Amino acid sequence: MRIVITGAAGFLGSHLSDHLLADGHEIIGMDNFVTGNPDNIAHLASNEKFSFYKRDVSNYIFVPGKVDAILHFASPASPNPQSKSGYFNLPIQTMKAGALGTHNCLGLARVQNAKFLLASTSEIYGDPEVHPQEESYPGNVDPIGTRAVYDEAKRFAESLTMAYHRFHNVNTSIVRIFNTYGPRLDLEDGRALPNMIKQALLGQPLTVFGDGSQTRSFCFVDDLVDGIIKLLYSDEHYPINVGNPNEMTILQFAETINKVTGNRAGIIFVDARSARDPQRRRPDITRAKNILNWEPKIDLEEGLCRSIPYFKQKLGIA
Amino acid sequence: MRIVITGAAGFLGSHLSDHLLADGHEIIGMDNFVTGNPDNIAHLASNEKFSFYKRDVSNYIFVPGKVDAILHFASPASPNPQSKSGYFNLPIQTMKAGALGTHNCLGLARVQNAKFLLASTSEIYGDPEVHPQEESYPGNVDPIGTRAVYDEAKRFAESLTMAYHRFHNVNTSIVRIFNTYGPRLDLEDGRALPNMIKQALLGQPLTVFGDGSQTRSFCFVDDLVDGIIKLLYSDEHYPINVGNPNEMTILQFAETINKVTGNRAGIIFVDARSARDPQRRRPDITRAKNILNWEPKIDLEEGLCRSIPYFKQKLGIA
Repeated sequence: MRIVITGAAGFLGSHLSDHLLADGHEIIGMDNFVTGNPDNIAHLASNEKFSFYKRDVSNYIFVPGKVDAILHFASPASPNPQSKSGYFNLPIQTMKAGALGTHNCLGLARVQNAKFLLASTSEIYGDPEVHPQEESYPGNVDPIGTRAVYDEAKRFAESLTMAYHRFHNVNTSIVRIFNTYGPRLDLEDGRALPNMIKQALLGQPLTVFGDGSQTRSFCFVDDLVDGIIKLLYSDEHYPINVGNPNEMTILQFAETINKVTGNRAGIIFVDARSARDPQRRRPDITRAKNILNWEPKIDLEEGLCRSIPYFKQKLGIA
Repeated sequence: MRIVITGAAGFLGSHLSDHLLADGHEIIGMDNFVTGNPDNIAHLASNEKFSFYKRDVSNYIFVPGKVDAILHFASPASPNPQSKSGYFNLPIQTMKAGALGTHNCLGLARVQNAKFLLASTSEIYGDPEVHPQEESYPGNVDPIGTRAVYDEAKRFAESLTMAYHRFHNVNTSIVRIFNTYGPRLDLEDGRALPNMIKQALLGQPLTVFGDGSQTRSFCFVDDLVDGIIKLLYSDEHYPINVGNPNEMTILQFAETINKVTGNRAGIIFVDARSARDPQRRRPDITRAKNILNWEPKIDLEEGLCRSIPYFKQKLGIA
C-alpha cells in the first residue's frame, strides 16, 4: 500500500513508519515539526520507500498519485503545562489538527477511496467515573476546561470520522490510544515515566509524588504499533482501545526503573502536586482481543531495557 | 454597534436581527440558506441598517469595514431524522459550521477586536443524568453516536471559543440555548410542539406518544432573544443557560394548544416511538438570573397566542 502518515516525525508516527516500511509498504510522511522531531525520521532519509513533505495538514493536504491509506497522527499530545510543545501552550493548533486536519485527511480519503485511520486517545474519556474504560463509556469531559482543547478536538475528530463513514461510506477506523512509552518519547514530556527514567539514568533519586500509590498503565510502543497496524488491516469502524491494561502503582514503576537501570540513588517522596493529572485510566481491551486478536506482550522490564539505549544516547551517556 | 449575525435567515438569527435593529444597531446578516429561509428576512429588505450576504461561513468570512460584534448562529439544528434540513441529513455541514465556521468567526473577531458570541445548545449535555442541568455539568454525549454530529460540533465550538478567549484574549460569550418556539419556527421541524400546533390549526386531533407524561421545557423566542442580547452586552465569558425552566408534560402542552386554538378534535394517544428522543432537559437558569438579571416572562398561553397568526399564515388559514 501507499500510505500517508501525518505527524510522521512524532513519537508514534515515526514508529508506525518504521513498522509499515518493514511490512513492505510505501510511506509518505508529513509533519510541520511543531511537536515532531526531524531526528525521529533521520534514519529514513535514504529509504527509497519513504518520502517526506514538511506540511501543516490543518491548512492543506495534497499527495501526488494514488493513496491507499491515510493515518492521521498529527497533533500536540503532551499534557505538560510547562512543555512548549504541549497542548496547553498550543491550544488552537491542537484544535485545528483535530478538526481541520481530520477534515482535510477525510476529504483526501474520500476522493482517493482510501482507508482512513484516526489516532484518537484515552483523553476522550476525560476524568473517568468508571474503571477500566470500555469503548461504550461516553466520557466525562468539561468542554470549557483548559484540557478540553485536546479532548474535544479528538472527540470532534471521532464524530467527523464516523460521519464520513456513515454518510460518504469512507472506510474508516478509530484507535483510542492509552499511555505509551519507548524510544523517541520526549524525555521533557513532563509525565512521570519519562521523568523518572531520566532521573535514573543521571543517577539521581527518583521523585515520587505523594506515597506513590497512584496508578498508571503504560504500553510499550512496539505493542501499541502492532495493535494499530492490525486495526489498519481490519474492517472495524467503531473505536478500539489499544493500550496496556496492566495497572501499576507509581512506586512499582519507580522500583522497576531503578532495578533495570541499576540506579542506587533510591526514591524521594515529595508532596503530591495539586490535582493536575489525578485520573486513573486503564483500558478495557476486550474488543481489541476479540476483533484484532491483539494484546500487549512486552512487560515493563523488557520495555525499559529496549528503551534505555535511546535515552542514554539522548542524554549523552556512554 | 455594527454586528455580524451568521445564520441570519434562521429562526433565531432573524429574531436577533429584528431586536438588535430595534436597539439601533447595524446588522450584517449572512446565511447560505441550507436551513435558513429568505422569507424570514424579507421584511428587512428595505431597512437601511440591514445588509445581507449569501455566504457559507464554514468556507470563508469577510466583512468590509469595522465590525464590533459577531454572533455565530449558523448551523442545522433540527434533530428530526425525516427533515432534509435536520442535522441527521446534513452531518458534515453541521460539523463544519461548528468547527470551521466558528474558527472563521473567531479569526474575524480577533483581527477586528470584536465581541464574539457563540450560539451553543443544551445538546452539549447529551442525554443528561442530572436534572435540571447546571452549566458545570459536563454532559453525557457519545462521540460516535449519530446525534454527535451536532453535539460534538457545539462542544468543539465552545472549547475553541474558550481557547481564543484565554490565549488570544478575544472578548467571547457562550449561550447554551434550550428548546424555543415562536413565529418563524419551521412547522416541519418534526418536534412535538410545532407538530401539535400544526395539527391543532388544521382541526386535527393532536398526536401524543405514549401517555403524554414525558416532559419538555419550551421558551418563547422573545424571551430567549432578550437573554441573548443581555449576554451580548455583558462581560461574561463562561457559558450561560438560556431557556425556560418551566417543565410541562407533553399532555399539558397538548391541552393548552387545543385550548388556545379552539381545536375540538381532541388528542389521540399512540404507541411511544422507539427511544429516539427520550431525554428530559430543563435548564438551571441561576447564572442567567444572577449575572444577566434575566428570566423568561412569557407563559405558554401568551407565547402560543403570539405565534398563531404566523403559523396560520404559513398554513394558508385565514
